[in-house]
Amino acid sequence: MERPEELAREMPSASIERLPTYLRALGDLAARGVVGTSSTELADLAGVRPAQLRKDLSYLGSLGTRGVGYDVVRLRDQVGAALGDAQELRVAIVGVGNLGHALANYSGLVARGFTVAALLDASAAVVGQTVAGLVVEDVAGLHGIVQARGVSIVVIAVPGDRAQEVCDAVVAAGVREILSFAPCALQVPPGVELRSVDVGSELQILAFHSRVRQER
Amino acid sequence: MERPEELAREMPSASIERLPTYLRALGDLAARGVVGTSSTELADLAGVRPAQLRKDLSYLGSLGTRGVGYDVVRLRDQVGAALGDAQELRVAIVGVGNLGHALANYSGLVARGFTVAALLDASAAVVGQTVAGLVVEDVAGLHGIVQARGVSIVVIAVPGDRAQEVCDAVVAAGVREILSFAPCALQVPPGVELRSVDVGSELQILAFHSRVRQER
Repeated sequence: MERPEELAREMPSASIERLPTYLRALGDLAARGVVGTSSTELADLAGVRPAQLRKDLSYLGSLGTRGVGYDVVRLRDQVGAALGDAQELRVAIVGVGNLGHALANYSGLVARGFTVAALLDASAAVVGQTVAGLVVEDVAGLHGIVQARGVSIVVIAVPGDRAQEVCDAVVAAGVREILSFAPCALQVPPGVELRSVDVGSELQILAFHSRVRQER
Repeated sequence: MERPEELAREMPSASIERLPTYLRALGDLAARGVVGTSSTELADLAGVRPAQLRKDLSYLGSLGTRGVGYDVVRLRDQVGAALGDAQELRVAIVGVGNLGHALANYSGLVARGFTVAALLDASAAVVGQTVAGLVVEDVAGLHGIVQARGVSIVVIAVPGDRAQEVCDAVVAAGVREILSFAPCALQVPPGVELRSVDVGSELQILAFHSRVRQER
């Protein structure tokens, strides 16, 4: 496998974004005891074209064997290693409302090698509560907590009108990877990787399909 | 503007998926009182290349004016109409745990023209509770509720081990647009549009970037 810095230079963002889907499909196959898979089968499970899958995997040096395909467990471990799941990454969640609660309790985080290292909130009513085994701390201590616990990813789950302010504080604390659930666009400086989950946008895409379907 | 069925035939999925981002950026500009914008400015706000933006918008018949650009409010309404936000779409949420609570209370839904028409859960402890002004109903009544209230989109917010079963029931109830938060792949028959929000995948993409950064 190539060194990570070469990977990052060469691998298109769109390919990186498909890796978790491949990893999930490979995990499902492995759980079902499937030993080998073809690019056609795996592409079908992942919802992409086989040529796309082969191209994406070629960046990892996983070319498969013509007529034989891929070894499921080996490829799963290869994709997993590329995604860094062997390494325990520490996540802090800012905003412990319903969404923050749901995220703190989300089993998929631990299953994929993430550790929730801190829960932070601004509300005195929430600070001090125990959620998912962690005591909620005051967001005012964000900078020290990030440094002391080696937090590398922060999830922002605060209301939209507080999100930019929290985002600025997270960046000031030295965090370079942010996942936002705020229903608004956030500005980050160059060098900070921001991903957004916008439920409203997802529903709007479905609404588009629904409208077309109804008027057909 | 073209008729929706023509739109759907011609407009690539990737273009449709960028429309909510454009709509959000245009909404922000309009809220700031900005009257006109260029494809460069709008593309920058949306995080795409200007050529991509112009191509996407051309499917809506919005070509802008060379040297003048786009009328912000007009373009916002055009993109909004394409996404069907003038039409009140009815959404049901299945699974009223922390995530379901957060979704039921999510202000972005109402703001974008969606109505939460039903909250459904399988747990006797949750059925009968009032959440976001709605009484949680038994998921056993899903089929009748979908039909009686004209639900066109269902959001699945149940644990992963229940998600496929719920998804099958939703499809059997005649729903064709599904948004899943389950941390696993769901199977739907052809003709059903399934979108998935997978928090674990989003974090894995950030982990990839974090790992590359650390090893640089």
